[in-house]
Amino acid sequence: MRKNEGAGEVLGNVLKDFRLSQRLSQEELAFRAGVDRAFLSRVERGERSPSFDTLFSLSRALGISLTQLSQNIESRLGLLNEKDYPRQGS
Amino acid sequence: MRKNEGAGEVLGNVLKDFRLSQRLSQEELAFRAGVDRAFLSRVERGERSPSFDTLFSLSRALGISLTQLSQNIESRLGLLNEKDYPRQGS
Repeated sequence: MRKNEGAGEVLGNVLKDFRLSQRLSQEELAFRAGVDRAFLSRVERGERSPSFDTLFSLSRALGISLTQLSQNIESRLGLLNEKDYPRQGS
Repeated sequence: MRKNEGAGEVLGNVLKDFRLSQRLSQEELAFRAGVDRAFLSRVERGERSPSFDTLFSLSRALGISLTQLSQNIESRLGLLNEKDYPRQGS
């Protein structure tokens, strides 16, 4: 986990890792998912927070499920280590 | 699964189900997650697609993980039944 990596940055890094593991360019993934390449670039840098619809399109274009994507993100954030996911509040 | 339920509608229904199972009002969940109640209402009706950051806040406020949320969504969409998650394209 990189320094001060927030959820948005982790999302960007996870998306980028999946993209690179499939040897896709930003341009190709953006095209497949129907999003703008510059927007994808900013998402990967954690500068933009994509909508759920866009996230769904990106995961489909990467051939992964949202569940896999979320697992990766929460694993990097250390959130899947919590034994019993605690409710907030009282 | 309701008729013609797209991913956005499924997200809304899943969020609403989790909220109701915890006996939270829209107002209370919105307050906890730091979002506008009217916005949450539209998300639950599938009329607005929340950003990843907002989705993350909502899941935290519900005391569930993004992974649990995604599993529920994809289960309702029938996407977790695919044995081997196929890549798109060649």
